[in-house]
Amino acid sequence: VTGRRYGQPVTPSLLLASNRGPLSFSEDGVVRRGGGGLVSALGGIAGTEDALWVCAALADGDRRAAREHPHRLPGSPPTAVRMLDVDPVVFDRAYNQIANSTLWFVSHLLYATPTAPVYDARFRRAWAAYRAYDDAFAAALAQEAAPGAQVLVQDYHLSLVPRQLRERRPDLRIGHFSHTPWAPPEYFCLLPEDVGREVLLGLLGADAVGFLSPRWAEAFAECCVQMLGAERVEGGVRHDGRTTRVDVHPLGVDAEELRERSAQDDVQTRKAALREVIGDRQLLLRVDRTELSKNIVRGLLAYRELLLRRPQWREQVVHLALAYPSRHDLPSYREYTGAVQRVARQINDEFATPGWQPVSLEVRDDYARSLASYAVADVLLVNPLRDGMNLVAKEGPVLSEYGVGLVLSREAGAADELGADALLVNPFDVSQTADALHEALSVPAKERAETCARLARAATAMPPTAWLEAQRAALS
Amino acid sequence: VTGRRYGQPVTPSLLLASNRGPLSFSEDGVVRRGGGGLVSALGGIAGTEDALWVCAALADGDRRAAREHPHRLPGSPPTAVRMLDVDPVVFDRAYNQIANSTLWFVSHLLYATPTAPVYDARFRRAWAAYRAYDDAFAAALAQEAAPGAQVLVQDYHLSLVPRQLRERRPDLRIGHFSHTPWAPPEYFCLLPEDVGREVLLGLLGADAVGFLSPRWAEAFAECCVQMLGAERVEGGVRHDGRTTRVDVHPLGVDAEELRERSAQDDVQTRKAALREVIGDRQLLLRVDRTELSKNIVRGLLAYRELLLRRPQWREQVVHLALAYPSRHDLPSYREYTGAVQRVARQINDEFATPGWQPVSLEVRDDYARSLASYAVADVLLVNPLRDGMNLVAKEGPVLSEYGVGLVLSREAGAADELGADALLVNPFDVSQTADALHEALSVPAKERAETCARLARAATAMPPTAWLEAQRAALS
Repeated sequence: VTGRRYGQPVTPSLLLASNRGPLSFSEDGVVRRGGGGLVSALGGIAGTEDALWVCAALADGDRRAAREHPHRLPGSPPTAVRMLDVDPVVFDRAYNQIANSTLWFVSHLLYATPTAPVYDARFRRAWAAYRAYDDAFAAALAQEAAPGAQVLVQDYHLSLVPRQLRERRPDLRIGHFSHTPWAPPEYFCLLPEDVGREVLLGLLGADAVGFLSPRWAEAFAECCVQMLGAERVEGGVRHDGRTTRVDVHPLGVDAEELRERSAQDDVQTRKAALREVIGDRQLLLRVDRTELSKNIVRGLLAYRELLLRRPQWREQVVHLALAYPSRHDLPSYREYTGAVQRVARQINDEFATPGWQPVSLEVRDDYARSLASYAVADVLLVNPLRDGMNLVAKEGPVLSEYGVGLVLSREAGAADELGADALLVNPFDVSQTADALHEALSVPAKERAETCARLARAATAMPPTAWLEAQRAALS
Repeated sequence: VTGRRYGQPVTPSLLLASNRGPLSFSEDGVVRRGGGGLVSALGGIAGTEDALWVCAALADGDRRAAREHPHRLPGSPPTAVRMLDVDPVVFDRAYNQIANSTLWFVSHLLYATPTAPVYDARFRRAWAAYRAYDDAFAAALAQEAAPGAQVLVQDYHLSLVPRQLRERRPDLRIGHFSHTPWAPPEYFCLLPEDVGREVLLGLLGADAVGFLSPRWAEAFAECCVQMLGAERVEGGVRHDGRTTRVDVHPLGVDAEELRERSAQDDVQTRKAALREVIGDRQLLLRVDRTELSKNIVRGLLAYRELLLRRPQWREQVVHLALAYPSRHDLPSYREYTGAVQRVARQINDEFATPGWQPVSLEVRDDYARSLASYAVADVLLVNPLRDGMNLVAKEGPVLSEYGVGLVLSREAGAADELGADALLVNPFDVSQTADALHEALSVPAKERAETCARLARAATAMPPTAWLEAQRAALS
């Protein structure tokens, strides 16, 4: 193992590949830590000596940095980072058209099927770009990896990489982890047949594939059986003479890290301000990206139905909805944000009284405010249509000061571990969600604190370091 | 058995129940034969002596007739008909909100999930109306049926009837037949849990339930297992101490009846006119109601991609798209009709030449024209997103004069029987559909005629009389 100094590449025996890396660069070259849940979860790799993180340049600042430092980025200790300078047109097609508008929609069952998807010639061009984008990762990984190295490929942006990499470097130990749900076969087969097969064969190029919930692992295996004629074997799937392990690694949160961050001044200031605003009322909280799968509109409608059908809660509750911008390159996301804002305004128009605003919708991203809100929330609403895991449901109980009640969608991966102590709801059932909010708001403080303590324990059962370790163990 | 004269009810030993009956009444009391595929399929009951058909009043003229003749409608030989005078508000909620905007959407996977469905207090009111509507059928059937009579309940409007009827009349032999697909469990569970259970338990109140395809039967049985904890047994489903048969009766068409109708003058006149318009070109035909599941927009886009990628077909093909109005009470259907018209216009704007209009879109319902078109079509496009059976795919080959090539969605029930001689496509895959159109247009006449003959044989394997007989046999 060579030493890791800027400009002097190591030959890594552990490689990580993800679309978004741990660093990004502004137009004028200033380095920032990258955002997103995946980056934070993968932070655990930071301590590993001979590791390399391969990621894509996401915008012009990144591309300049990647061109100037094609092997290793500056400013990247403790992990070495190689950023791939992908052509912007290829990137747009692969990232926006395929990853976020196709694979994400399939895995979350988001299509308005009468009109979308349309798999036409334009889609085929985008699919070719996705293949090229993944191939750029496979090429870089193949070039960098030490003999027999472990490669951990992350998420739906890189579905084809395991197979592309195995074809170049059969000596490597390749893992893939999906942070999304997986679609049941009857929905996965919306994809063109050759594309669906290519995705499945791409993942089966790995020695081990991982999912956040047994449901997603099961759906993946069933797709392999029904679309490839693969065989299910003990612990995995067998196809074309090779067996791929199929594992479940339910990612949790790092309590210590969260608490340390929450102890900082910016969080404490916001917490005090929040307490001021809430007063004696209960705080109903949600924290999400404004993502089509997050179900913010129905969450607001459930709150509206609560106020309508159970007027005793009027003026007794404040609903703080933190809905941060997401994927605003896609028109459907911009429209969805508008719908969220309209419904929030309607509720305020309908129910506000002097001195009480029922909903407070915040669309400006502010992580410190999220952490502060977790501390003082009475009820946390997490109602996605479908969600790989949902870490908000895990962060909330860990940071709650006096205990928070959790209303949780049964379609979130987190329901596997938190279901016993949460109020589970069908995310499409607004009336049931309204009833669950009523129930959660009615729980006595002592009981809420006890339940919350159990939720926090379950939420921290597999922190990111252990989760990463489990992926590595599956490869040895 | 008493004689059947108007005003003198029989005590029927065979009862049929469906939302739409064989008769309807205009505002001024004029009787018409009712429309719709179900009515035509059930026509086979007409010859049965002691039969009664129970249906709902659909509009004001019907309601007046039903009130004036609460037991038996006038003008209804050879089948006795009792029409139920359902309150218009109850009917609107049951028919539009539940049957057509909920159960139809679930079974055809049509929801734009980020925003629909919303199962809120309004939905609960509509659900109560649906229950009341079904209960009105159950009450009428219970009142009319001879001891031990057979009752054939039809389709998704009447899901709850079998159980409601059994509770009143355990002596009856009750069947239910679904003319729609059935949703896989992962999609069926979008419904509120209590509603989903009520639907399944409603059907399981029957002695035998029937479906058009093994896929739908399988999905139904799986929903019973996963949502009710029912047990699958040989030939059916066992729950709560009772076994319900689950059968597949793949409804076909009556060749003789179709040919007789086609021999009539109105059809022959239209055929001559069509031949004039088409000239030496090939005729690509589609015939649908403008239904969200029928996939008319993607069908037009596939034709567009054919003209774009394979310019040799320009001026060589005319695409006649018969798209009849459907469910225009629902805004999403009106919008969809607009989208169909826009795409058709765009294609004509883009490709038309002097003397050649690529698409001819007809939205005015004209059954004789449909029959005439079948006779002279060269290629028939039937590409629904999902379809219980699709009888157009069966009528076309039966009436074709020189042989028609069939491009068929693999998601239509008809694909079970016609798949071997059709070009099967993924309905979301516009490029694949364009390729299939090219292939179908390229088939030599002799081969096309041979294939078409096999399609026609398969299409007539189970004509309506045999299909009705199979439902009755399942009850004895």
